[in-house]
Amino acid sequence: MGTVKTSEAYRFMVDCFEAVGTPTEAAEQQAELLIQADKIGHSSHGLNRLEYYINDITMGACIPNNEPKILKENLSTAWVDANNVLGATASHFAMDIAIKKAKETGVGWVTVKGSNHNGIAGWWAQKAAKQGLLGMAFTNTSSLLTPTRSKQPALGTNPISVVAPASQGETFYLDMATTAVAVGKIEMQRRKGEPIPNGWAQGPDGKETNDPYVALDTGCLMPLGGGETTSGYKGYGLSAMVEIFCGISSGARYGHHIGPWTHSEVGVPNNLGHCFVAIDPENFAPGFGNRLTESIQHWRKLEPTDPNVPVLAPGDKEKMAEKEANIRGTVSYVPQQIESSAALAKRLRVKPMEVVEDN
Amino acid sequence: MGTVKTSEAYRFMVDCFEAVGTPTEAAEQQAELLIQADKIGHSSHGLNRLEYYINDITMGACIPNNEPKILKENLSTAWVDANNVLGATASHFAMDIAIKKAKETGVGWVTVKGSNHNGIAGWWAQKAAKQGLLGMAFTNTSSLLTPTRSKQPALGTNPISVVAPASQGETFYLDMATTAVAVGKIEMQRRKGEPIPNGWAQGPDGKETNDPYVALDTGCLMPLGGGETTSGYKGYGLSAMVEIFCGISSGARYGHHIGPWTHSEVGVPNNLGHCFVAIDPENFAPGFGNRLTESIQHWRKLEPTDPNVPVLAPGDKEKMAEKEANIRGTVSYVPQQIESSAALAKRLRVKPMEVVEDN
Repeated sequence: MGTVKTSEAYRFMVDCFEAVGTPTEAAEQQAELLIQADKIGHSSHGLNRLEYYINDITMGACIPNNEPKILKENLSTAWVDANNVLGATASHFAMDIAIKKAKETGVGWVTVKGSNHNGIAGWWAQKAAKQGLLGMAFTNTSSLLTPTRSKQPALGTNPISVVAPASQGETFYLDMATTAVAVGKIEMQRRKGEPIPNGWAQGPDGKETNDPYVALDTGCLMPLGGGETTSGYKGYGLSAMVEIFCGISSGARYGHHIGPWTHSEVGVPNNLGHCFVAIDPENFAPGFGNRLTESIQHWRKLEPTDPNVPVLAPGDKEKMAEKEANIRGTVSYVPQQIESSAALAKRLRVKPMEVVEDN
Repeated sequence: MGTVKTSEAYRFMVDCFEAVGTPTEAAEQQAELLIQADKIGHSSHGLNRLEYYINDITMGACIPNNEPKILKENLSTAWVDANNVLGATASHFAMDIAIKKAKETGVGWVTVKGSNHNGIAGWWAQKAAKQGLLGMAFTNTSSLLTPTRSKQPALGTNPISVVAPASQGETFYLDMATTAVAVGKIEMQRRKGEPIPNGWAQGPDGKETNDPYVALDTGCLMPLGGGETTSGYKGYGLSAMVEIFCGISSGARYGHHIGPWTHSEVGVPNNLGHCFVAIDPENFAPGFGNRLTESIQHWRKLEPTDPNVPVLAPGDKEKMAEKEANIRGTVSYVPQQIESSAALAKRLRVKPMEVVEDN
């Protein structure tokens, strides 16, 4: 693994975005989003994706200089055209509207079309939570999920994120793909040379596979819940729900119409859809934060099945990873990622990312 | 199975509620909710539960003559005290507010405390969908779900329901417990004398059990997703999300503080929490219903893994069951339910439910 100062990885990302014509604020916002993913341990959504974003820009599939705009507005809703800006630009724009409306009416519900990949959904839900609101973020993604009984994919890994502020510094943080696992987990098993469990992915015959190579070649992830006997149709339903909130509401591309990101075409916008929601809990019973903290702390103290493996509250893993990353002041990358960043630096003629330690 | 005219089962339920002092409208609304569950094949939530509701009333744990009231209101939100009325009364009251606000501001988000069991969540989400809105309904329930790694339950089967109106008479209908399966499915395996699959429930040692007797005695259902390797922590997170929307927002009892329904105490209100949401899709891109119908019809035509088992859209099973029940004009009950209904009729001195066919 290569260890890089967090500030240096951030500098490198900003430089890359600026090198392809991204305005400074947009470059910084997109880099913050990627760095956060690396810090909380969701490395598939961090530096790992930088080159995809850069390629979208250089191919004219994403126009970072555009400006998003509101197409329709009601007291608690807005319909936004992201106008093909970077996902972070679009998401800040839309979540800011949701937050404003939540403060005015109790709820803000904003759908976005014409957008690009917007990284970890949790970052956007958390934006609302930082203002004392219950935040939610949803996005559609490339079609990879096979509905129960199907041999073909028709929906995305469509994440659901909900972040809620609690008292005593606690936060409820949920950010989950509606497939059983995200693609990154299968890639990890392949790298380790280990099989994947039942319930993760299907082979070309539509049956569950334990072979990570077959799983990745086929591109048919099983919904949360796995097969039909373990209620995989619920994960399928949740993924469809997210698509209803995103592409079907906003008029972006949706479901089976969304091809793989790696196959973006020159000048053809990704036209992804998102949905951002903010709710002000002050409109309901006083003591929201205390009840949530009491719950979170209760969950952590539940008697574990294995005495050595404590029960966690949703988001504990991410918070621990972030805390450690902040103490270290560094992020770590696999050698392959360090190499591809060096190649990207050369290609874009930016200062390469400095690696402080290689082990 | 005993076959009963739907109108007769409904008459019987209304009579029972009225016999214990329920006002006619409340009795009818509660009976409609139970009949609907029987019609769509969710029989655990139908006549099967009548006696629980009746007992809650006779014990003074539920007061059907009270009136729910709004405690706090904003343009898009309301906080409601159900004032211990029947779940159907409280849910009509609250969803009506959500619908009104959605028509005015785009979104209505209503939380309810002091309520009782409100049956199938889908009935409430559908109420909004019948008015052209995207409807959602959530409720907390008795603590039965074991968070990932835990030996002890701490959350309910907390359902998520989302119903969306589409064009050409199509509807998206999702109503799902956030546990892998609801208790009724385990009871069914016990009745058939068959084991339960991995991923459904834990035994007293915290490990997965395949024995339905052990599962029902232990009362530790696994979250949607099953064990940790198949992402059961996502189902745990979703159940917690529902609790945040319901008890934690509304100040009702929540999570580990909710005991089993069968152990209701004399004069002690159940104090359950619900959340109802309505959103007007007209505030976003035109063509919502067409895009949704195109998706639903696409899902049904996906190539199935088994050519004899077609892919379904969420809600297809329920819609087919309802259609058949409407054509027949009857509902069917297991002998044990027919017998307990006869005993209930005797106890409440109401006209017994007439069975047209016993086979």
